[in-house]
Amino acid sequence: MINVFGHKSPDSDCVSSAVIATHWLNARGKDATPFRLGEVSRETQFIFDFAGVELPPMLDKPLKGEKVYLVDFSEAEQAPDDINEADLVGIVDHHRLGTLTSSAPLEAWLMPLGSSASVLFELFGIHNVEIPQPIARLMLGALLSDTVGLKSPTTTERDVELVDLLAPLAGVEVESFLADLLAAKTNVEGLSTEALLDKDVKNYEISGKSTTLGQLELADYGQVKHELANMQAVMEQRVADKGLDLAALMLTNIRSEETRLLVAGPLADTIKAANGDSLTFEGFLSRKKQMLPWVTEVLS
Amino acid sequence: MINVFGHKSPDSDCVSSAVIATHWLNARGKDATPFRLGEVSRETQFIFDFAGVELPPMLDKPLKGEKVYLVDFSEAEQAPDDINEADLVGIVDHHRLGTLTSSAPLEAWLMPLGSSASVLFELFGIHNVEIPQPIARLMLGALLSDTVGLKSPTTTERDVELVDLLAPLAGVEVESFLADLLAAKTNVEGLSTEALLDKDVKNYEISGKSTTLGQLELADYGQVKHELANMQAVMEQRVADKGLDLAALMLTNIRSEETRLLVAGPLADTIKAANGDSLTFEGFLSRKKQMLPWVTEVLS
Repeated sequence: MINVFGHKSPDSDCVSSAVIATHWLNARGKDATPFRLGEVSRETQFIFDFAGVELPPMLDKPLKGEKVYLVDFSEAEQAPDDINEADLVGIVDHHRLGTLTSSAPLEAWLMPLGSSASVLFELFGIHNVEIPQPIARLMLGALLSDTVGLKSPTTTERDVELVDLLAPLAGVEVESFLADLLAAKTNVEGLSTEALLDKDVKNYEISGKSTTLGQLELADYGQVKHELANMQAVMEQRVADKGLDLAALMLTNIRSEETRLLVAGPLADTIKAANGDSLTFEGFLSRKKQMLPWVTEVLS
Repeated sequence: MINVFGHKSPDSDCVSSAVIATHWLNARGKDATPFRLGEVSRETQFIFDFAGVELPPMLDKPLKGEKVYLVDFSEAEQAPDDINEADLVGIVDHHRLGTLTSSAPLEAWLMPLGSSASVLFELFGIHNVEIPQPIARLMLGALLSDTVGLKSPTTTERDVELVDLLAPLAGVEVESFLADLLAAKTNVEGLSTEALLDKDVKNYEISGKSTTLGQLELADYGQVKHELANMQAVMEQRVADKGLDLAALMLTNIRSEETRLLVAGPLADTIKAANGDSLTFEGFLSRKKQMLPWVTEVLS
C-alpha cells in the first residue's frame, strides 16, 4: 500500500492533492491511501465540506519500510523526521526541486504551475483518468487557494485555463465559490491573540539576525482592528523573551492586495525607515516572493 | 536557449537522450540545443553513425545564467562544477532522485524504466510528438545499451514492449542490430593495458577501505586473454603507488552473463575466499546492482 501525503503545516493544496493523487493512483491500478501531517485550516475544511469528501486521517505511523508518495513538496525539512527510512516511490509537485533524495528509481512529476492540483489535472489527462465532481471541486479549491484566486505571482496562463475547464466539471460558479473560499481563508473569528500570531509564522535567520515573519490573510483590516494593540504587546514580549532581532507580522488584505506590517524588536525602526516611514506595502500578497526578499535586502 | 545534456563520463543513453530530448523540446516550441560532457565510446559512435545523426558538441561554456535541461541524472557529482549557477529548467531521468536542487520551480519527468530513452518515448506520447526514424534509432540504441539487450536487472516489462514498438519506426531488425551494438560495446581492439583498466573505473570507500572497481564488458574473454598478465601487473603497481586496499576489475561476458574478477591488493585473498576460492561470478552483469553490494557485504 502506498501512503500519499503532503508537507507539514498542511495547506489546502497539499491536503486536497493527497486525496486527488490517491484517486489517480487508484485509477492506475495502484493501492494508495491519503494522509495529512497536521491540523487543517478553516479554508481546507470548507473545500472538503463543499466537495463532500472526508478529510484524510493524520499520518501517525513509523515510515520505516513503507511506500510513500509525496505531493506538493520535495524538501526534507517539510517531511516527517523518518522520511529517509521510507521507500519513496513518487512525487507530484510544483515547487523548486528540493533536498529529498531517494534510494531507488521512482516516478516524479514536477511542473511549474500554480498548484499541485494543477499538475494533477494534467496527470489525469496523461493517464486518461476521468475527473468526478468531488475531485474537480477539490482541484478547483486547491488551485484557487494556492494562487489566491489567480492573483498570486505564481499563477500561469495554464492555471487560468484550468479554472475554466474545472468549473463545469465541479458544477461551480467560480466567482461565488471564490468569494466563499476567501471568506473561509480569511476567517479569524474567535481566534485568540496568540492564535492570530501563530496561524502561519516562520522563522528565518537573515544576515545573522534572528527574525520571525508571520502572515495573516484578511478580507478587511477591520477583522483584526480590535486585536492590533494586543498583538503588538505580545510580539514585544516575545522579542524580549526569545532575544529576537525582529518579529514581523504581515496583515495581508487579499482583496485590495495590500499588506500592513506589524513589527517589534531592535530592527523595527530600520524596517519602517526603509519603506519611507510607512508600514503599508501596496501590491504585496506573497511572503516568499515579495516580503521576504524585501526584508532580506533591507537587513543585508 | 535551453542547453540539454547528460552526465559526465557520458554513456550511450545520456548522449542519445540529449539529442532525443532536444527534438521533443523543439517540437513543444522550445529553443533547445544538445551537448555532451566528454568523449563518447565506440558503442555511442556506432549508434549515432547508424542513426545518421551528428554527435552533439562538447559543452565548453560557463553555465552561469544559462538555462539547462538535464537528461539521465539528478546527482550534483555527475554535473559540471558550475551547475548551481545555471537556471535548471527541466530533468528527464530513470535513476534515483539525486542531490541536485533548483532555485525555481521546474519540470521534471522521472520514471523507473530501463533507460532515459524509454522515459522520452513516453514523453513523445504524452506531448503527441512523432518519432522520426533517426530518433527511433537513437531511442532503440540507447534502450538496448542501457539494459544490455534487455538482460540487465533494471529492465522492465514496458522496456520490452518499447523495443517492439520502436523496431518498425527505426526500420531495424532487433537481433542483428543488437549483435552489432554489443560488438561495438565490447570492442576493445587496439586499447592499451592502461586504457583497458581505465575504460570504466570508479572509486569507492567501503567500510573504511579504499577500493577501485572497474568494469570491462566483453563478448568473449578471448578478447583480453593476451592482456591479462599485463593488467594484473599494472593493477599491482597501482595498489602499491596509491596505497589501495583493493583494486578490482570486472571482466563481464555479456553473452554468457558471467563476470570474472581481476583483483590486486591486501584484500584480494579475502575477496577470493568469500566466493569459494573462485573469481568467477555467474549471472553478474551489473556493477551497481550486483558486484558492489556483494563486495560491500564481504568487506563489512
